[in-house]
Amino acid sequence: MLVSPRPTTTSEGEHAVPLQQQRPTGKGANQEAVRRHNLGTLLGHVHRDSDVSRADLTHRMGLNRSTIAALVGELERLGVVAQSTPRGDRQGAGRPSLHVRPGEREVCVIAVELRVESIELARIGLGGAVHGRRSVPVEVGASPVQVADQVARAAADLLDDVPTDTLLVGMGVGMPGIVSTEDGRIHYAPNLAWSDVAFSELVQERLGGEVPVVIGNDANLGVLAEHARGVARGMSDVVYLSGDVGVGGGLITRGRSLLGTVGYAGEVGHMRISVGGRACRCGNRGCWETEIGAVAVADALGSPSHDIARLVTLLETVDTPSPALREVGRMLGVGITNLINIFDPQVVILGGLLSALYPAVRADVDAEVQHGTLDADDRRTQVLLPGLGRDSVLVGAGELAFGAMMSDPLLVVAAAEQAVQRVRVAAV
Amino acid sequence: MLVSPRPTTTSEGEHAVPLQQQRPTGKGANQEAVRRHNLGTLLGHVHRDSDVSRADLTHRMGLNRSTIAALVGELERLGVVAQSTPRGDRQGAGRPSLHVRPGEREVCVIAVELRVESIELARIGLGGAVHGRRSVPVEVGASPVQVADQVARAAADLLDDVPTDTLLVGMGVGMPGIVSTEDGRIHYAPNLAWSDVAFSELVQERLGGEVPVVIGNDANLGVLAEHARGVARGMSDVVYLSGDVGVGGGLITRGRSLLGTVGYAGEVGHMRISVGGRACRCGNRGCWETEIGAVAVADALGSPSHDIARLVTLLETVDTPSPALREVGRMLGVGITNLINIFDPQVVILGGLLSALYPAVRADVDAEVQHGTLDADDRRTQVLLPGLGRDSVLVGAGELAFGAMMSDPLLVVAAAEQAVQRVRVAAV
Repeated sequence: MLVSPRPTTTSEGEHAVPLQQQRPTGKGANQEAVRRHNLGTLLGHVHRDSDVSRADLTHRMGLNRSTIAALVGELERLGVVAQSTPRGDRQGAGRPSLHVRPGEREVCVIAVELRVESIELARIGLGGAVHGRRSVPVEVGASPVQVADQVARAAADLLDDVPTDTLLVGMGVGMPGIVSTEDGRIHYAPNLAWSDVAFSELVQERLGGEVPVVIGNDANLGVLAEHARGVARGMSDVVYLSGDVGVGGGLITRGRSLLGTVGYAGEVGHMRISVGGRACRCGNRGCWETEIGAVAVADALGSPSHDIARLVTLLETVDTPSPALREVGRMLGVGITNLINIFDPQVVILGGLLSALYPAVRADVDAEVQHGTLDADDRRTQVLLPGLGRDSVLVGAGELAFGAMMSDPLLVVAAAEQAVQRVRVAAV
Repeated sequence: MLVSPRPTTTSEGEHAVPLQQQRPTGKGANQEAVRRHNLGTLLGHVHRDSDVSRADLTHRMGLNRSTIAALVGELERLGVVAQSTPRGDRQGAGRPSLHVRPGEREVCVIAVELRVESIELARIGLGGAVHGRRSVPVEVGASPVQVADQVARAAADLLDDVPTDTLLVGMGVGMPGIVSTEDGRIHYAPNLAWSDVAFSELVQERLGGEVPVVIGNDANLGVLAEHARGVARGMSDVVYLSGDVGVGGGLITRGRSLLGTVGYAGEVGHMRISVGGRACRCGNRGCWETEIGAVAVADALGSPSHDIARLVTLLETVDTPSPALREVGRMLGVGITNLINIFDPQVVILGGLLSALYPAVRADVDAEVQHGTLDADDRRTQVLLPGLGRDSVLVGAGELAFGAMMSDPLLVVAAAEQAVQRVRVAAV
């Protein structure tokens, strides 16, 4: 069996984390583990930047030139990177540094985002290039099996024209729901009306069992993407908010995803900011999402519909916000302030509906944050919109799928190679 | 100069973190770094457990027996560990495993806790044994210089009778205030009425410049201690609350301290849970600490004084809590619930005044937590009192001081040896 249970159920957040950092505290390190760690870390640099000089790699990784050369050589023999001297790089004295890029052979993942109204898919290559996209409408109330069928069909379609030696190293799926880190199951997805679904297994079966499928919560993948390729690139402490009817949080602390004990961290929408306030669908009162979610925004705009696209359009036309909308802005500021006081992040990123809300009520949000943050002037926290716009979650799903490869390229490439061989044998 | 600026200003939270985990994502690892990492990790096991078999070390560190034997041998030559066969360990077949313990030579730190009314000090040996304690009263309004003088005198007193070859590897100081991770200065300590104080430098000068002094926020050290030696031992995600007039939070996520971008994380007392509620000294309304801090507890108890010791005594006599006190309990539950929804921790530890409050209103706290936590039944979060009681912060200060040694024993022992030699030369 090619796909061991481990990669299938690995949850989000391990992307680009060096092997050593994944070990629980107290573990030692041996030479073979160090080599694999170094290979994965180097490949991670190539993936993030898509073109990096060996001199830069030497500097960033703190290893000497001959070690870097050996590591690059090993990845080159695997076919996943190539090196060359870029034109125009010869002006300085001395030998120009070779550059390392993704290799000729296509190495890719399928990224999937389950939305309430559609499934978004992309084929993403090593280095982050998007080679193809699909968007498939979903019926309201579709079952997990129906959606898994749709995902598998669209993925097959995306892979239809790739060369036969393409290494498909995984599929990543982002969705609006709680995913257990213990077994990789979707625990609960209120907007899809799913509970306790082994969705990754459903999809994996339909892909012939050859491709590891990993799944993660949308906000957790949003923060991963913004950290890897968006406005939070290189930052250590990041809060990403995905607003919709509910509000979810994706968190990075010390450069790594914060998922919690069983994977349920980040439920910032149910942070109570107004004890005795509006009733929340969770059964409590005064949860943050009752004050800033789609229902509150629709009420403030006088809109009968909570449809997100419609609300975004309405918010874009707001010139002078009404007192009711300003109050929503103030409540957005109160919750952001709480999170700044708790996490002291470099950035709070406002995704989903909040991306449209913030520009309309920015003065009220910013005033509340400035007033409510302890020692606001000493902090470095910025409030920003996502660098990847609507694509944060989809890109994060791709990063999630590439995660195993950046931990241990040898293992992942070997598995993907075997899959290619089996498909070839089967085709004969 | 023995004491480089680096160890002086290192802030809390690095204790027992393997070297590899301290590197920013993207670094490689070379053989020398791996050896130092492994030496530090092994010493960390000996420090935590004070007696551990080589067989256990082999298992825990995932290294082979000969590597473990070599590492232990190197630490033994440094004089910091010793190995022997424990009596009674010979009943089984085969060779009994040697046990590793702290060596004969004393290796110690001075732990200091600055409280509002006193300074607590302890000399703590490798392995965690407390070899001596002092408690020094502090005048209200004492200046940083006055307190530094008192700390230095009490530390000298604690070191008066140690053998001359004792290796003093550092001093750790815990205090109720915000400590910048950027420069190690006390940014603001409202209860001491200090702001922008380079306290570690003041103390270090008075100790002859030979001993690295590191300083940390009390809640951050409380969580460190409970994680190392208290109720959160071995857990990955921990919330520690230190309640007093204010409420501070110490956070561990994925086994490591969460300090934030500039070290200001954990200000959970200013999480607003009741917009428009009671006025807080921070200038806002409805901050959590206005609902559960000493002032709120005193009001609920009808006590004219906010003195913590008096409130603790009053709380201990509560048999049936009044409606007002039950409401304080409910607000304690609301804030705990927010933190559980945000962090999904294994444990929330209630320190300081909250240790006395919780038993008095436990039913109300627990009901609120059970009701307000999303998917409460799937979680593993426990609400507990500190395992180290009043000593959490002091023990955490000791762990902080030992931190550098568990990262790189060779470097720290060499520096401490040089200090011993210089003192000898000076004494001749």
